[in-house]
Amino acid sequence: MMALTRLDNGLTVVTDRMPHVDSAALGVWIEAGARTELVDEHGIAHFLEHMAFKGTRRRSARAISEAIEDVGGDINAATSVETTAYHARVLAEDVPLALDILADILTDPLFAEADIVRERNVILQEIGAAEDVPEDRAFDAFPETAFRAQPLGRRILGSRASVTGIGEARLRDFFGRHYRTGAMTVAAAGAIDHDAFVTAVADAFAAMPEGAADKGERAQYTGGAYSEASHSSECQWLLGFEGVPAAADEAVVAQLAAMVLGGGMSSRLFQSLREDRGLVYDTSAFHWAFADSGLFAIHFATEPATLGEAADVVADELAAARQSITPAELARAKAQLRAGLLMSRESCAARMTTVARNAMIHGRLVSKEERIEMLERVSVADIGAFFGKLNLSPPTLVSVGAKDDTSLEAVRARFEGTALRGAA
Amino acid sequence: MMALTRLDNGLTVVTDRMPHVDSAALGVWIEAGARTELVDEHGIAHFLEHMAFKGTRRRSARAISEAIEDVGGDINAATSVETTAYHARVLAEDVPLALDILADILTDPLFAEADIVRERNVILQEIGAAEDVPEDRAFDAFPETAFRAQPLGRRILGSRASVTGIGEARLRDFFGRHYRTGAMTVAAAGAIDHDAFVTAVADAFAAMPEGAADKGERAQYTGGAYSEASHSSECQWLLGFEGVPAAADEAVVAQLAAMVLGGGMSSRLFQSLREDRGLVYDTSAFHWAFADSGLFAIHFATEPATLGEAADVVADELAAARQSITPAELARAKAQLRAGLLMSRESCAARMTTVARNAMIHGRLVSKEERIEMLERVSVADIGAFFGKLNLSPPTLVSVGAKDDTSLEAVRARFEGTALRGAA
Repeated sequence: MMALTRLDNGLTVVTDRMPHVDSAALGVWIEAGARTELVDEHGIAHFLEHMAFKGTRRRSARAISEAIEDVGGDINAATSVETTAYHARVLAEDVPLALDILADILTDPLFAEADIVRERNVILQEIGAAEDVPEDRAFDAFPETAFRAQPLGRRILGSRASVTGIGEARLRDFFGRHYRTGAMTVAAAGAIDHDAFVTAVADAFAAMPEGAADKGERAQYTGGAYSEASHSSECQWLLGFEGVPAAADEAVVAQLAAMVLGGGMSSRLFQSLREDRGLVYDTSAFHWAFADSGLFAIHFATEPATLGEAADVVADELAAARQSITPAELARAKAQLRAGLLMSRESCAARMTTVARNAMIHGRLVSKEERIEMLERVSVADIGAFFGKLNLSPPTLVSVGAKDDTSLEAVRARFEGTALRGAA
Repeated sequence: MMALTRLDNGLTVVTDRMPHVDSAALGVWIEAGARTELVDEHGIAHFLEHMAFKGTRRRSARAISEAIEDVGGDINAATSVETTAYHARVLAEDVPLALDILADILTDPLFAEADIVRERNVILQEIGAAEDVPEDRAFDAFPETAFRAQPLGRRILGSRASVTGIGEARLRDFFGRHYRTGAMTVAAAGAIDHDAFVTAVADAFAAMPEGAADKGERAQYTGGAYSEASHSSECQWLLGFEGVPAAADEAVVAQLAAMVLGGGMSSRLFQSLREDRGLVYDTSAFHWAFADSGLFAIHFATEPATLGEAADVVADELAAARQSITPAELARAKAQLRAGLLMSRESCAARMTTVARNAMIHGRLVSKEERIEMLERVSVADIGAFFGKLNLSPPTLVSVGAKDDTSLEAVRARFEGTALRGAA
């Protein structure tokens, strides 16, 4: 049973009670992330997320982790393009403790200089680890190429140089601007009583300053090409087009289109690239939705020798998708999203995330019935129209890995030709 | 509510009914994996897992994936050292369909030559993708070094050469030897009625030949050192010692020891390496338990400049752990395992895996109360004794990534000194 309460100070509290579970997932969502960073703040949202765990006046860093792990709980956080989420997973009786810790680290972080220096080193190691994985490199370069020279596209971890430039003053400034009640959603799912939780949240976050969310500059999809050679066996490819915002009715059309094209074993790309030709181990299509834009994407990885053939297949499938999606394929994609939605309801963490996203994206609760109804309304014509519109924006082409320049150029020409002018 | 039935033909059926869920997770577990492969079969267990999805007399590969995805379900498989598991996740009403598909692909796979050629290419791409990730390379080389020249340690994917040598005859031979009722556990959790499921399984797998599991040669931990340079920012390190078998009472001691040493944010390695010194982004300790041996391991990654210092910290922590684990640390580790066990009970897939492992490892059901009681019985002295015994076997040292030879030699000397002769 879902419930949403907006406190007088602007803070949103949202819960989903699950009667038959003995634990809960808690999340504090801040509407700040990579896209709300200023030019000289690249990487600061993520840096701040790390620093939140480094101690408060009441608890040292070690006391924070020991307090939650003493009861077998788990606390962690994740920074994304538009949000920073702090979450905890605990048994029912430890919900008050988890909430107290989350409120403590988010209202009273110390930002001690020695901790900043040490945590900067940790983040530099994290950057190094991400650089070592060609797929991570490609996924970092992808939004950067699609939303050129904009904070929305920038790598969430920041660069070695930008992270080195972040100190206490900048952290305090970013914290002061963004960690405010109007930019916060406190969510919980599982063994949770809404009214009691609302009271506890209001009390725990009483010290949080008021103020609205600052959502950063408007996104402008640009598209473009990026290529990076690396010593590897495979070449990672990402191909993208402008998508739609998260709150748009069309977002569910984009999700279904991605499912039909590359969402499962029976999807067109999996069948063409892997089952019919054995060209790839992995391929997928997906849609990332932001507040004011989106990115529709195709990913595949293959060796240089088979790159040209794989790229041809992808370009052909993309062109064909405008006119040949069948009612059976759409029905299957709907069944997949519907069952995924129903099965995820068994997970406290998934339901906590769902209600939090409802509150942040739609400003209200969205029932599972309403979500399923939105799915069911989509027609084959809607999917065709969506694929037809993809070519109105320039494509985004990112490749990282083993490659030879000839096939690279051929692939680029093929995608740009198909995507922009169409083969169907 | 758990239940186990052994059919007359030797097949084991095990279920865990969850009254408040509307879906189910199914798994067919075959006791065959990398360690049951003969010398010229390297990679065949995994190859066969791929081929099971390539069609039967009743269904083409496409029909298999469409049938399960038409109802929004999901079917997949995973090959490990000792098992090959085929699993499906479906809504309650689709359990009969999922079982029919699993039984079809496991009793009647076609092994068509054209499919073998295509799927071999897919696996070669999978091998290439794994080679491109230094952490994957390190984790592949680790068991290979710990159990030298034995199938147990060999890379599950096989090598390019070995996979190229696998064709229809070898696949049929391996399939005939291992896919037998005595080596099979069919497990389900969620919206499942045990008696009806047993009847359905007996019927669906009626064609499966009888025969006992062939568990391969006895494992002999050897230890050793392996080093590989790569063009990367970080160096991946794995340090290992002989562990204990999965069915041994001491397995839970090994799990708790790993938790105390490197199992969470409050663990000794996380605090020393990351919190106190900022040397790593990621570190962990874990214990892999096999039927007749085990591998206790520490993982960390850092840049070459900080490798010496990080290695010193790890060696010191390992030596100190023999005598200085406190009752509070052990209590916290128990709370973490206990809460993890209780929270995983909300997941159909986790409970399906738990009952299947109970059946395969212990030959019977193990209640959550019994598992918690086993945890609670472990004393500080047991943990100290476990760490004390680690140095009775030669260490396993694996490093993959950026490195300079001087620090590498220093690290090796440090670990071998500490581990073999002890600093405490």
